[in-house]
Amino acid sequence: MAEKNLAPTGKTKAQVFRERLLSTLILWVIVSGVFVSMNPWAFFGLVLFLTGAGALEFRAMLAGQPGNGCRTIGTGIGILVVSFVGFHFCQLESMGLPAGLEILEKDGSSFERSVSHHSYWMGYDAEIFGLCLTVLAAFCWRFRVGIIGRESVNAVGDALMAYVYVPILFGIFTLRLIFLPSVEGIASGAWILLLMIAAAKFTDMGAYITGSLIGKHKMAPKLSPAKTWEGFGGALIFAQIAAWSVWLLAGETLAWLAPLHVGILALLIGLVAIAGDLAESIVKRSLGVKDSGNWMPGIGGILDLIDSLAFAAPVTYFYLQFFVLNHG
Amino acid sequence: MAEKNLAPTGKTKAQVFRERLLSTLILWVIVSGVFVSMNPWAFFGLVLFLTGAGALEFRAMLAGQPGNGCRTIGTGIGILVVSFVGFHFCQLESMGLPAGLEILEKDGSSFERSVSHHSYWMGYDAEIFGLCLTVLAAFCWRFRVGIIGRESVNAVGDALMAYVYVPILFGIFTLRLIFLPSVEGIASGAWILLLMIAAAKFTDMGAYITGSLIGKHKMAPKLSPAKTWEGFGGALIFAQIAAWSVWLLAGETLAWLAPLHVGILALLIGLVAIAGDLAESIVKRSLGVKDSGNWMPGIGGILDLIDSLAFAAPVTYFYLQFFVLNHG
Repeated sequence: MAEKNLAPTGKTKAQVFRERLLSTLILWVIVSGVFVSMNPWAFFGLVLFLTGAGALEFRAMLAGQPGNGCRTIGTGIGILVVSFVGFHFCQLESMGLPAGLEILEKDGSSFERSVSHHSYWMGYDAEIFGLCLTVLAAFCWRFRVGIIGRESVNAVGDALMAYVYVPILFGIFTLRLIFLPSVEGIASGAWILLLMIAAAKFTDMGAYITGSLIGKHKMAPKLSPAKTWEGFGGALIFAQIAAWSVWLLAGETLAWLAPLHVGILALLIGLVAIAGDLAESIVKRSLGVKDSGNWMPGIGGILDLIDSLAFAAPVTYFYLQFFVLNHG
Repeated sequence: MAEKNLAPTGKTKAQVFRERLLSTLILWVIVSGVFVSMNPWAFFGLVLFLTGAGALEFRAMLAGQPGNGCRTIGTGIGILVVSFVGFHFCQLESMGLPAGLEILEKDGSSFERSVSHHSYWMGYDAEIFGLCLTVLAAFCWRFRVGIIGRESVNAVGDALMAYVYVPILFGIFTLRLIFLPSVEGIASGAWILLLMIAAAKFTDMGAYITGSLIGKHKMAPKLSPAKTWEGFGGALIFAQIAAWSVWLLAGETLAWLAPLHVGILALLIGLVAIAGDLAESIVKRSLGVKDSGNWMPGIGGILDLIDSLAFAAPVTYFYLQFFVLNHG
């Protein structure tokens, strides 16, 4: 649901569609390659690349706004934290440990049996440390600048947005999904990631196709004129199709995820993928930017690519933590 | 270092000083009462009261600014998270467990011996969950409003500031200091808290007294005209005096904190207490507010009271985690 109607390219709908299809195919080839390798470092590399590019794109969108130093602080600390956490996960994985997790077994039940219903604590030490550092450093940076009205507070808010929006919401939670606890290496986490990406992207595609074909009733004319309620319904149906397809393909690997949870997850991912897309519309229009970047024809920037995932990743992760892994 | 010279009260320096002294005495009586009780719930109640009042004060300072709904979202979620974490800590404490900590013992060494040199993971699940919820809810709230230029992004930044500044920096890290791992209930955490408060407040007092007596060279004329380099030096000396006094008074309870660490902590607390005070100056001046509130005569609002602690608490906590508890 990138904002096609705004693109000042003068291209026809068919041209845009072809470009979009080609770009999407190339992306899926890269993602599939990483997926087939089942190599923790390949996953980490892909997440880090997308996080870094997305965070720098977001930083560039804030350019010309006050507090340039502060947004650089938030972006830099965010990328460092994602690097640190991902590296840590890969190391733990290569040692054969369930990455970042301590599995508290109950009643001496075996490790294999406890995978789907353990309770665990995962430390967010690095993430919270980065959050505190961002606020303190952003304020200290402003000591040099003096007061420039409301801009002084906004600059610190920008630093927080730069730290949280791409690095935490997208980067950290994508990593945590990949490195879910598993007795089979990162396979189950990788399949969950695939399920989430497929559901989010099919939400996108479902909205586009259904909206183009039968879209009539505008959903959010103030934010994104191309979005219709028909597209919304189609999006949610496509999300279900995608999630169930991936779940069936995964076979034994996702057997710990009960069918009920697949349906609920697909619904949640569909809803927050739409919300994430609208959120990026707010960011772009608020900052007077038409495309977040010009990275791949027909898609736009990296942010246009990961906007829905930035909302879907934490929601998927917390759903699994609260309702599946602890109580399964 | 509240901004006396700006107060439009027309009071003399001596009057302000008397009011300030009285208010400070009353506050110390309350804090001492909680401290003497050594009751986890009393500590929790005090932290929650200060967090709630401070967060609402910060929210009120943002009033008249755009995104009122978003700042309420961040404030509300922040207070809920502090309540949840504090309640959780108190419950664990009453069960005799080291609150919020899982101590990984090495080589079967005893619990008593591992207090000063264990490695642990502390889950920040609630804090990170609240952070994600704040961003998602703030964006979704803006779906109703439409785009109002830069204000749309600033509103989400405000929500993040409201969530992080008082509830996380002050509330969560004060709680985590109180509920440090200990074999003696919360005594060692309470003494660490007292050390931090004393060092931060003596920093304040040292700056005020030294600055008033011999202050000549302005430190940050753009931000806070009353601050001088003489006051800065006096502040750091007073911080050392306060920290060492509390450490000596604590006796055996803080025996695990080596003298070197007391000196470094006092220096760090002094520096960030000054930074925290300047940061609140930025917030107040940026938002065109003279006092954060009018809660106690001579002190101002709750934010004026906790501004230095909001920076000192996370710094103290992370210093202990990185350099004392894991490697002591």
